Amino acid sequence: MRSDLPQLMIERKLNAIVVQGNTDTSSDLAYICPGAKLEGALYLHRRQEEPILFVNAIEREVAATTGHEVKLWTDYDLIDYLKAHDNDRFAAQVAITGDLLRDHNVSGRVGFYGSGDRGYSYIFLKALAEANPQIVVVGEPEPNLFTVARETKDGFELAAMKAVAKQTTEVIDAVIAFIQAQSVHSDGLIKEDGSPATIGDVKALVRMELARRNLEEAHGNIFSQGRDAGVPHNTGQLDMQLRLGQPIIFDIFPRDPKSGYFHDITRTFFIGYVPDDLAIRWRQIKSIYDALLADMRVGERCSYYQNMACDYFEDLGYPSTRSDPKTQVGYSHSLGHGVGLDVHEQPLLNHHPDNDTILQPGHVVSVEPGLYYPDEGWGMRIEDTVAFDAQGSLVNLSDYPYQMVTPLS
Amino acid sequence: MRSDLPQLMIERKLNAIVVQGNTDTSSDLAYICPGAKLEGALYLHRRQEEPILFVNAIEREVAATTGHEVKLWTDYDLIDYLKAHDNDRFAAQVAITGDLLRDHNVSGRVGFYGSGDRGYSYIFLKALAEANPQIVVVGEPEPNLFTVARETKDGFELAAMKAVAKQTTEVIDAVIAFIQAQSVHSDGLIKEDGSPATIGDVKALVRMELARRNLEEAHGNIFSQGRDAGVPHNTGQLDMQLRLGQPIIFDIFPRDPKSGYFHDITRTFFIGYVPDDLAIRWRQIKSIYDALLADMRVGERCSYYQNMACDYFEDLGYPSTRSDPKTQVGYSHSLGHGVGLDVHEQPLLNHHPDNDTILQPGHVVSVEPGLYYPDEGWGMRIEDTVAFDAQGSLVNLSDYPYQMVTPLS
Repeated sequence: MRSDLPQLMIERKLNAIVVQGNTDTSSDLAYICPGAKLEGALYLHRRQEEPILFVNAIEREVAATTGHEVKLWTDYDLIDYLKAHDNDRFAAQVAITGDLLRDHNVSGRVGFYGSGDRGYSYIFLKALAEANPQIVVVGEPEPNLFTVARETKDGFELAAMKAVAKQTTEVIDAVIAFIQAQSVHSDGLIKEDGSPATIGDVKALVRMELARRNLEEAHGNIFSQGRDAGVPHNTGQLDMQLRLGQPIIFDIFPRDPKSGYFHDITRTFFIGYVPDDLAIRWRQIKSIYDALLADMRVGERCSYYQNMACDYFEDLGYPSTRSDPKTQVGYSHSLGHGVGLDVHEQPLLNHHPDNDTILQPGHVVSVEPGLYYPDEGWGMRIEDTVAFDAQGSLVNLSDYPYQMVTPLS
Repeated sequence: MRSDLPQLMIERKLNAIVVQGNTDTSSDLAYICPGAKLEGALYLHRRQEEPILFVNAIEREVAATTGHEVKLWTDYDLIDYLKAHDNDRFAAQVAITGDLLRDHNVSGRVGFYGSGDRGYSYIFLKALAEANPQIVVVGEPEPNLFTVARETKDGFELAAMKAVAKQTTEVIDAVIAFIQAQSVHSDGLIKEDGSPATIGDVKALVRMELARRNLEEAHGNIFSQGRDAGVPHNTGQLDMQLRLGQPIIFDIFPRDPKSGYFHDITRTFFIGYVPDDLAIRWRQIKSIYDALLADMRVGERCSYYQNMACDYFEDLGYPSTRSDPKTQVGYSHSLGHGVGLDVHEQPLLNHHPDNDTILQPGHVVSVEPGLYYPDEGWGMRIEDTVAFDAQGSLVNLSDYPYQMVTPLS
């Protein structure tokens, strides 16, 4: 959690960390600037010192809300630096960063983070290292200092995540109510005016219900039906009519723009009725889902649960990514991922041989077993986001029923 | 524009370019994968060859909509690579990228782009270069190949930008109508139930009107009143009541999630009446705004217009960032910026000594003169986004009136 950062700096032998970028594209910068929207900011945290935030003057008030000491980029006037470097902006930027570090007595190992163009970051940090022998430019492989800190959520974060979870389930409720209010013609749903009720109608409703609650869809949503549900990241065709007896995957992962936290939940349901063969599949997924939730506990390896899901599905005759890494049918993805300021973050519930993560208090993960057979016209997934609180108890943030069939009213 | 990419590769002596990341955080990746949402993708474009897009299997169908040849990461099975590298994920990832480049006969200068952690990008590309002497890892300073390509919009892009511009002005209309529908008590606006009409009410309305049109607020909006309007990036206080005779800056910059393009427009207005001294300031800004729009033409330097605005404001006795780089009052920012897949991109209308950009067909820029005096309780800005079409004619995408006073009905 955030309070671990000073200790993580010590463990990684970092005298300072520098995080640069925009809060909207760097979730690490957003993590240390809670609630503030900043563009072109630089966060400098020296070991044993209070952090300093360098921002553009027009963002000075937003920056102040973070509680960090705020300094302005005008302290390092770009125009002067450009003049001193033959109008070479790259050289000017390297010089500004070098001077900033020198002015703040930074030396030794300095970790660099934040989001940027990959090639630019490479040449920039190389040039910075060459021009400043007093510092050692450190880039970290994953998991870096922020990955580790962010992996465990504190009470403030868990409260924020509970709030967005609750609002998300309200949106699902509104979608179910919309579906139930439609009429049936042949095997398709129609609206009051007789036109087909479509996935586009559902997506429009989701947008309105999210906006009403001040949630945003930073990465869209998935509402896929029939064979489309059989391709995990197929988001659904807008002009497709809602139909009876088809598996519908509704995977919704909104963000609260105030706190920045995501929720992630999936339900698979059938409108009106469920064909017998698909009901069996749905119950299989629900069965392993229940077994996983009953078993998940602090102290166990994350990979254990992916293996548990693979064991179960493979015993039933389905391929998994463990039995066949290239499979595109059966249980064709891993069990889950951390959720936080990114919708996909650490820890991962996969069986990769390098995954030695142990579940611990503060972990928040999605749990999402599923089966996919697009050529047979179906796919299904059940997903909740669960948290381990400070006492290590599992709290299911996605407090929403699992109903296989949505009856029409 | 996009069709310039092959020629830009030749000019920069690049045998290939590699763009890696997520389309939601790398606008360069989004640029070459129009309309697709991808996570952990790699785009490989070799000179004189068709591009190849490497994606996770679960995103294979989304990836196919880009029209690029799609290959799957399962061709480079991570688990095998982890086993071969003592479960060192960093080493495995470096090896995968090296093998991928070798398998596709890439050698010589290769440009790397896309968004990533700055420190990770540094050590990753350094390790890649060391392990693959057949390639020269190139990172570009700004403006890189994508910056230059994206700076000029093609017909498809201009059409997309016109569409989001039109929808944005509809949202402004709805806000003005909301304000006009309120009653007045003392000098504040009140709603039907007698409670104060607040900036929070306006922001909630904006969210609903954007959602109705499937626009998203990737970076929020600004609706700031009185002294808050005097700090350019102050976004406004939700609980502040709307008041008569106060300057209100409404700066809205939504994105169309389908095309990915932004619009950016600002109006400053007063509800009910405008104090005489502030009316003079508003007309001054409108006057230079009109002069700028009348003058802007293909072939002129971008810096010319910032200098023109500085000349004007300085002649009136206001400081500018040219007369005082540290000023936080007066005309305290530059004139404008490119708008496209990022809300702030090239070209820039500033007076920096390295800004030698000449306006050309396909450029789309914001033009936003303003004045700021927070301690005197006011700030104002007028902003439109204008485009130069293929014929070089200026097209004001922000087709919306400039009304200083919003009368109550």
